[in-house]
Amino acid sequence: MNPRLDAVRSLMRSRGWDAVVITGGDPHSSEYPAPRWKQVEWVSGFTGEAGEVVITADHAGLWTDTRYFIQAEKQLAGTGIALHKTRVPDQVLIPQWLAGQDFDCDEEGPVIAVDSLAMNLREVRSIAEAFSGKVRIVSAPDFLSPLWVDRPGIPATPIITLGEDITGESRKERIARLRDALSERECDAMLVTALDEIAWLLCTRGSDVEYNPVVISYLLVTMDAVKWFVRKDIFSPLDESTSDTFEELSADGIEVLPYDSVGVALASLAESGDVGRLLCDPSSLNYDIYGTISVPILEAASPIALMKSVKNSVEVAWMRDIHIQDGIAMEKFLYYIEKELSEGRIISERDAAIHLDSLRAEIPGWMGGSFETISAYGANAALPHYSTPVEGSAILQPRGLYLVDSGGQYIGGTTDITRTVPLGECSTLEMEDYTLVLKGHIDLAMAVFPEGTPGCRIDALARNPLWQFRRNFGHGTGHGVGFFLCVHEGPQDIRQNLNPEPLRPGMITSDEPGIYREGLHGVRHENLVLCREDSENEFGRWLSFETLTLCHFDTEAIIPDLLTRDELEWLNAYNAMVAETLSPLLSDAVAQWLQLKCAPLRP
Amino acid sequence: MNPRLDAVRSLMRSRGWDAVVITGGDPHSSEYPAPRWKQVEWVSGFTGEAGEVVITADHAGLWTDTRYFIQAEKQLAGTGIALHKTRVPDQVLIPQWLAGQDFDCDEEGPVIAVDSLAMNLREVRSIAEAFSGKVRIVSAPDFLSPLWVDRPGIPATPIITLGEDITGESRKERIARLRDALSERECDAMLVTALDEIAWLLCTRGSDVEYNPVVISYLLVTMDAVKWFVRKDIFSPLDESTSDTFEELSADGIEVLPYDSVGVALASLAESGDVGRLLCDPSSLNYDIYGTISVPILEAASPIALMKSVKNSVEVAWMRDIHIQDGIAMEKFLYYIEKELSEGRIISERDAAIHLDSLRAEIPGWMGGSFETISAYGANAALPHYSTPVEGSAILQPRGLYLVDSGGQYIGGTTDITRTVPLGECSTLEMEDYTLVLKGHIDLAMAVFPEGTPGCRIDALARNPLWQFRRNFGHGTGHGVGFFLCVHEGPQDIRQNLNPEPLRPGMITSDEPGIYREGLHGVRHENLVLCREDSENEFGRWLSFETLTLCHFDTEAIIPDLLTRDELEWLNAYNAMVAETLSPLLSDAVAQWLQLKCAPLRP
Repeated sequence: MNPRLDAVRSLMRSRGWDAVVITGGDPHSSEYPAPRWKQVEWVSGFTGEAGEVVITADHAGLWTDTRYFIQAEKQLAGTGIALHKTRVPDQVLIPQWLAGQDFDCDEEGPVIAVDSLAMNLREVRSIAEAFSGKVRIVSAPDFLSPLWVDRPGIPATPIITLGEDITGESRKERIARLRDALSERECDAMLVTALDEIAWLLCTRGSDVEYNPVVISYLLVTMDAVKWFVRKDIFSPLDESTSDTFEELSADGIEVLPYDSVGVALASLAESGDVGRLLCDPSSLNYDIYGTISVPILEAASPIALMKSVKNSVEVAWMRDIHIQDGIAMEKFLYYIEKELSEGRIISERDAAIHLDSLRAEIPGWMGGSFETISAYGANAALPHYSTPVEGSAILQPRGLYLVDSGGQYIGGTTDITRTVPLGECSTLEMEDYTLVLKGHIDLAMAVFPEGTPGCRIDALARNPLWQFRRNFGHGTGHGVGFFLCVHEGPQDIRQNLNPEPLRPGMITSDEPGIYREGLHGVRHENLVLCREDSENEFGRWLSFETLTLCHFDTEAIIPDLLTRDELEWLNAYNAMVAETLSPLLSDAVAQWLQLKCAPLRP
Repeated sequence: MNPRLDAVRSLMRSRGWDAVVITGGDPHSSEYPAPRWKQVEWVSGFTGEAGEVVITADHAGLWTDTRYFIQAEKQLAGTGIALHKTRVPDQVLIPQWLAGQDFDCDEEGPVIAVDSLAMNLREVRSIAEAFSGKVRIVSAPDFLSPLWVDRPGIPATPIITLGEDITGESRKERIARLRDALSERECDAMLVTALDEIAWLLCTRGSDVEYNPVVISYLLVTMDAVKWFVRKDIFSPLDESTSDTFEELSADGIEVLPYDSVGVALASLAESGDVGRLLCDPSSLNYDIYGTISVPILEAASPIALMKSVKNSVEVAWMRDIHIQDGIAMEKFLYYIEKELSEGRIISERDAAIHLDSLRAEIPGWMGGSFETISAYGANAALPHYSTPVEGSAILQPRGLYLVDSGGQYIGGTTDITRTVPLGECSTLEMEDYTLVLKGHIDLAMAVFPEGTPGCRIDALARNPLWQFRRNFGHGTGHGVGFFLCVHEGPQDIRQNLNPEPLRPGMITSDEPGIYREGLHGVRHENLVLCREDSENEFGRWLSFETLTLCHFDTEAIIPDLLTRDELEWLNAYNAMVAETLSPLLSDAVAQWLQLKCAPLRP
């Protein structure tokens, strides 16, 4: 009933593997791997952004988190692959599950094969640790390739560079800051494996990874050299932007080398003798490349992640500006939805998503979406990461709630916004949920907190209004957002996990509480907020948030009585600011409509 | 100018020590060590509850936290000992400070002497780690004794037992639970070194440690034996309660052995051969005893701490009851203060504290205070742990704020309550602070949160109302409270530190936000709250708090406009409940007064 599963099992038998682990990861632990690395989808049909498959002789399972339970149950039906739930109290993660199996093997433990290109060091180690060493892990790079007819190749797209007028800092300055950070850590080199870190450091962008403007490559930074291992070979001389990029980098003393020569370069580091200790981040270093490193390694979080997360004043100015453009597209879109429905036209979730993308595409510097637009009506919005089907998506009705979560990549930045729109009459439960989630969004947006506070300490501010009604949501409240880079980046976040990383001025994070009721509706309200210095007094230094996203919150579905005075004031001030900022840039019709939408809500 | 400091330095010279570390700890890491172990006070004059002294040839310093800065500056003046601040952003803790010193020594590192009886394993290790091993730590038990004329001895007070009607669980059941926990951890024995854990496990109480009803002792629990090392030798046969206790314990198969024979017993464990692995909690195992252990050790948090923190239904019933009694004493006290002042009588902070203690002493089962009563008027309350002087304490004036933080130890439980009382006209700032801190207290008391939530995730609920006004406090919001045991216990807490221990049903924790303005005033509002199961629904299992403390909050100093409707409703309901519960148990005069005090506050 699942020939691909059968094929994997016969491969396992022929190789003597007791189990295989198949991840959706690429060799750089990217969030949205290129089609070549959608191995989980290939074997299971599951299209969620997070999932791993484990296959043994008598069991096949997919591990995914709360966001994808409903979707996974649908897509796994009849595949012979069972759903294993994560981010739930009684979760059993893959390493523990594997260690709990009764394999028919000698005391050396079972043979578990992993695609060592598609798994990072940390993932592989966690399996070995679960068996306390009593396991034989086989490094099997690309082991699905022989089974996967027409498996896509490694992407290689044109590469551009960003000038200092955009980045606010030259690649030379960034490399110098990295070298200082390496010295502090008593290292004299770093292998940069996370693609967004390479893009930030070199001020380069590409489109090798869906939604992430990055280039598949490795970067080796020593104290006197920078070597970029990238698929230069397949760029034709006709691709001007890429050849210009390579010239510009060479002029800055950066060697551009073939992607597949990185292993040899790492293997020869020892004899070259000019690297004493190499910094590697185990969260993005794949197990295959790890095996080629010939010098002592310091395994540590990449110092680039923190540098990248703190935006400089030039990046912030661009982000403010791009959010005006992005807000215009959003308001045009919301006007369109309301108008079309009022005139009785038929709009599907898919139509809406396409129209929104087309509005963003008109913005100068638009480079594509920052993730797959979630356009979800009614019960579909109960899937936090609903994927709108290309064919036969739901038709918007003039009642209930419509949720749209979308964002753009622009030369001037990255956006991510969710609005939940009442399309007509709403149930009391819909209005309660809409209002309580908005309270949580506002309470976090209004937060003032001492310097040094990690996001996990203010996450409850966004949840408390829901908690008071015994309601909650199963995902984080906020993720870091890159500057014309990944829409999800670290090291900071605002969520349940006790991540000690403080929120720092210059960091941009989402504020997106929600609530999801299977079969009924989903609500999420999301803006991006910039952490900024607020003030200093006898109690210390204070930080607060500036909301970057500019798009009104619909007041139709609000139960005003549930809002505190402060929350009501924030909402009215925000909507007024949106109208004031965007109206002059909109057509009269849309501007007038927006003024009405932003009329102050009365208690 | 400080002969004791000089004496220590000459000892150091004669022994060839480069530095000594003097802590206020006893051999069991008790919070309130007996006079014998007040070594920090002996050498520095500092009487705060938390402080350590480091002495080198050319520097002497006291390390203490935000609670004691003002007090320490006063008490250290002229002692030649400098204040080192902890719990501040730029803190340099003792190990790091020592490692940063430029000692005149060979490459083996400096010689640092520690009183190995007064420091636990973790404290000593942190020093060695700061030097990455390059240090020679000398174990010098009681090294101050030769200098300290008339140093007090080890206390030995009568020992009582608590029946199952009080504890809700027999010592045999508790020992059985401990043995199960040891098996889970693959241990077959535990050396219990924390005195409250021994008291809980054996259902015994004493008064060897000020405010803590415990017995100085060690307890060795194996799978087939329980050996209690206690100062039995000095108990005269006339001390009936103690000899009865020893008989009762022997009847339960517990061997009572001399306190100072524990070292020999631990040293002989190896040859006895019946202990494979011994569990020890490094946070209360002193460095001296550690040196005597002859079998493999598992260093881990004591499983007893968690068992002890979750109160059973019998303990909870007693705590509810004792809080009625404690509340009566508090209301009588607040009535007395108001009446005396209104009649123009002179009351000092000290008078007030003595009167409050006398009211508690009338309660059946009263065994003393649970900590030193803080009775602080006006600017004195700006010291969060102000110690009311015996002579010349401040006189209460009919204006401003008076803060009283006190608690009792009773056969039926432990209490801890803070009230901040407006004695007359208050400044706007006093009223703002009073109201904002009360908002924080109420918001935490009203909290509803998912099962598994650690206290650090809801700490911000108590701080947010202050944060909104750029105000804060430098101590934790809540500490665990024992059942007729330590007023401060773990493993849970509600504070800034990212302690992952979840709040569990049955845990009792304080809710005590505050604010402190040097030279002006201090505000703190504290109740004890019981974590309880709240409900279960499609979003999971919910927990909330039941307030145990029964004493009204004065509404005179409140700015009603700063309260949300929910906060106002909580306050009025709480005060009404206090009046309804306590009035029938109070004299007519006090009852009538209380009714007025608890009249609902209008918006």
